Amino acid sequence: MERVPIHGSGGASEIWVGGRLDRLAERLPAGRRVVVVTDANVQRLYGHCLPPDLLQLVIGTGEGIKTLDTVADIYGALLDAGADRSAFLLGVGGGIVCDVTGFAASTYMRGVGFAFAATTLLAQVDASVGGKNGVNFRGFKNMVGTFNQPAFVICDPAVLSTLPEVEVQCGLAEVVKHALIADRALLSFLEDNAERAVALEPDVVRRLVGDSVRIKSAVVNRDERESGERRKLNFGHTFGHAVEKVAGVPHGHAVSVGMVVAAEISAARGRIGRQEVDRIRALLERLGLPLRTDADREAVLAALGRDKKRQGDRIHFVLLDAPGRAVVEEIALEELQSAAAGVC
Amino acid sequence: MERVPIHGSGGASEIWVGGRLDRLAERLPAGRRVVVVTDANVQRLYGHCLPPDLLQLVIGTGEGIKTLDTVADIYGALLDAGADRSAFLLGVGGGIVCDVTGFAASTYMRGVGFAFAATTLLAQVDASVGGKNGVNFRGFKNMVGTFNQPAFVICDPAVLSTLPEVEVQCGLAEVVKHALIADRALLSFLEDNAERAVALEPDVVRRLVGDSVRIKSAVVNRDERESGERRKLNFGHTFGHAVEKVAGVPHGHAVSVGMVVAAEISAARGRIGRQEVDRIRALLERLGLPLRTDADREAVLAALGRDKKRQGDRIHFVLLDAPGRAVVEEIALEELQSAAAGVC
Repeated sequence: MERVPIHGSGGASEIWVGGRLDRLAERLPAGRRVVVVTDANVQRLYGHCLPPDLLQLVIGTGEGIKTLDTVADIYGALLDAGADRSAFLLGVGGGIVCDVTGFAASTYMRGVGFAFAATTLLAQVDASVGGKNGVNFRGFKNMVGTFNQPAFVICDPAVLSTLPEVEVQCGLAEVVKHALIADRALLSFLEDNAERAVALEPDVVRRLVGDSVRIKSAVVNRDERESGERRKLNFGHTFGHAVEKVAGVPHGHAVSVGMVVAAEISAARGRIGRQEVDRIRALLERLGLPLRTDADREAVLAALGRDKKRQGDRIHFVLLDAPGRAVVEEIALEELQSAAAGVC
Repeated sequence: MERVPIHGSGGASEIWVGGRLDRLAERLPAGRRVVVVTDANVQRLYGHCLPPDLLQLVIGTGEGIKTLDTVADIYGALLDAGADRSAFLLGVGGGIVCDVTGFAASTYMRGVGFAFAATTLLAQVDASVGGKNGVNFRGFKNMVGTFNQPAFVICDPAVLSTLPEVEVQCGLAEVVKHALIADRALLSFLEDNAERAVALEPDVVRRLVGDSVRIKSAVVNRDERESGERRKLNFGHTFGHAVEKVAGVPHGHAVSVGMVVAAEISAARGRIGRQEVDRIRALLERLGLPLRTDADREAVLAALGRDKKRQGDRIHFVLLDAPGRAVVEEIALEELQSAAAGVC
């Protein structure tokens, strides 16, 4: 087991890579009312691993339940349960459960304590780290939320074995992102072990999760609120979010397409060469990730116009200076338009 | 004009006592999209004093609009207006407008900048200072919210002249609270000038607002998150909130009754004498504030059982060690029951 510390403005957090879900009780705060928030799938598979005396609130599944209504349901259940300011919420699930739980905890009675047990590869390598939480609003992703760090996150590799293939792909997309923006060695490791990563071989998974958490937490420790450095974590996501919204494809698939777009713009600006774009495309393909989308291009571009990172008619965009090194630049919406033509 | 600085974990704030609403534009951040949130009454009276090019979002009036639905309406209007992460919200109104605006700004796109122009005496002496925001949930006050400091607060004495009598009384209740918990000199000033305070004589108002902001901000600077010192600001409020919820009386009237209860419990515990309770009662009466309520006692006590400050069957309660000095103690719900018998 490996501990990665995070230092956010809202307090410290620690990620336990290789921690065990069935030994979670050891980490829960003593003397506080702990309430579990989870979804129906996770409860069915792993509910029995949790301490038996904890109230378990079950929210629905899928991006569609990441709403203010779901958060209000949690407030209501907490109130019904008599949960006071000393309550402690434990989100057990993937990114949606963690995002919703983190926002509910950060706002119930102006903030109660919380932690996560991340049960998807995506949540382990990405959503659980960084202190962002929130919900969608009118179909726009993460329009409402706060920055607030969980007390801890448990990343148990054992629970990944029940993941559907697409969930594994979504996690791997974020691992590729971390490698591309910050870690050339991890990129080579992925290229050497793509098929073993897809098969979730334990040694490979441990390396991918550990490296991802370290990379992301290092960025977050330097810049929690995304004024600069943290923007690099948006590599592939600006375009990806628009694709996800328009086409309704899984997050990681949309991010994969977004990374292709970002690589192409990086090449168009002369920052990386053609062969490096091809290398990125080849890795994504071996991991089962898509290089293009059926989404309507005009709809995607319209959605980009409402992105949180837009300021006026330019947009902050993460490009590659080299594989393993990212740079944030303002680009014109027009540059995005021509790159979009290659993927949708 | 007098500037009082605040140092919260969410950043610094400054309160401008004697600042002018019609010169607000000078303080707004340059180059950012400013959106005003106000209510219909305030817009009718003072909307023309604001810079003419600002979008003004009008929310309803009264405690009933302090809900998640109103906050969602603001999110929607911001999205419709294309407000991005650089947006800046300006709440112009009383405590309800400020609380709702602060929460919307703290959560829209995980937080945009905001400031207040406080237009009621209550907001000037209390709600505008301290960095608490939020909304009610299922009728329970401030069950949902965050801690976050506005960039600045303007307290313009000129706008108080249009306040209804009950609004003035509500503000004065909080001034009495500040005097009782922290400032014996202010208490004497109130006793010497009660009728002039009710008449809103400018010199008196300036002293009351300035002293209140200084007292509250000093407490908040020492303890933003209410782990100890800040709890003193709840003097009269634990019982008061329950009365407000059950009887639907104005906040300051409920707090006045709550202060009587807290003074009586302080006397019952031997911390202050009978003559000091009588002195407090006399001052409240001269300021037009009630000493008892028609609310059903059992309903008030039931509401107290759900108070945020309750932990188990005891409750953190603010008592007086002397007029001008507060102390926080755990008391049993039974002690509250017997004090309640004297006021409802």
